[in-house]
Amino acid sequence: MNYPQPLEDLINEFMKYPGIGRKTAERYALYTVNKFDIAAAHDFASTIIAAKDKIIQCPICGHLTETNPCSICADTNRNQTIILIVESPKDVFTIEKSGKYHGLYHVLNGNLSPLNGIGPEELNLKTLWSRVQNEIIKEVIIATSATQEGEATAMYIKRVLKDIDLVVSRIAYGVPVGANLEYTDDLTLNLAIENRHKF
Amino acid sequence: MNYPQPLEDLINEFMKYPGIGRKTAERYALYTVNKFDIAAAHDFASTIIAAKDKIIQCPICGHLTETNPCSICADTNRNQTIILIVESPKDVFTIEKSGKYHGLYHVLNGNLSPLNGIGPEELNLKTLWSRVQNEIIKEVIIATSATQEGEATAMYIKRVLKDIDLVVSRIAYGVPVGANLEYTDDLTLNLAIENRHKF
Repeated sequence: MNYPQPLEDLINEFMKYPGIGRKTAERYALYTVNKFDIAAAHDFASTIIAAKDKIIQCPICGHLTETNPCSICADTNRNQTIILIVESPKDVFTIEKSGKYHGLYHVLNGNLSPLNGIGPEELNLKTLWSRVQNEIIKEVIIATSATQEGEATAMYIKRVLKDIDLVVSRIAYGVPVGANLEYTDDLTLNLAIENRHKF
Repeated sequence: MNYPQPLEDLINEFMKYPGIGRKTAERYALYTVNKFDIAAAHDFASTIIAAKDKIIQCPICGHLTETNPCSICADTNRNQTIILIVESPKDVFTIEKSGKYHGLYHVLNGNLSPLNGIGPEELNLKTLWSRVQNEIIKEVIIATSATQEGEATAMYIKRVLKDIDLVVSRIAYGVPVGANLEYTDDLTLNLAIENRHKF
């Protein structure tokens, strides 16, 4: 016996999300049918459409926003001379929550990954090139992950920017504050030793 | 900086599901906005509403179904003398997949849980009482979980049915086939020893 088709359809929708397998999708679909009333189902449905309708990518930095440009690009109190390059909008929210950075951002929406068919054209890079032509920008901080793809992306950006008069920097990777060396993975340890500084 | 409101709304919708915390809900909401196009968002939204609109609880057994009564209750080839009582529609799908049971079902939609305000009135029990008045029913198999609440529910049903002329049985709980004793939890081990049979 299979699930009724409308339930099967909903299971398949949930399975489109990363990390949601068949069993989890079944649980969510059954929960939707069992625990939501009609009004709650309509609320969820219209919230999905509203998010997709109202949220756009900022045409300047690529961040998710309701306004054009986004509130960060529009904020003249921020330091207009630095751009921090991140992989995803989530990174912007994370860094903004930490509250220590007051420059601008640029969201790549991914990393270079030739094996997965993601080249420079697939990333949000064109607007970055035009932003840095502007003489106001003095520094570009690359905050892509310390993975092979993140490093390749960082190297690519550094190479393209080499003839422009600005500082290209990379955020520091190392042992997190409060972490025990015993439980730190080898790659992080290697990076931490490589990036050691005089004490 | 907070998420734009439409994104925040969608995060809150995902957080309504069991086991979805804030971080996971953020990931799903961002995935919806980043990776779904408008058509995909509308598909997801209408699938939620369709599932809620078209799937009903079978008025006889309480199982989720598109038809009234459900295909199991309507199937005259099934053994009409046995009712297997389960906690949720998921259990029906699971047992049907295993393919060994050919009787009828009754879905309680939960277990007794006085601490959470779930008494007999909150469970799908009224229709069970009227079903067993029917002389055709010879056996009722209780398959609620081997948890405190599942046991309490089983005991309650047994007590209510004690004056009716039918066999009330409970499915066997014990060490799963293929499992190693070393990795079996204490409660299961205790049940397995308690429910031992002559070899």
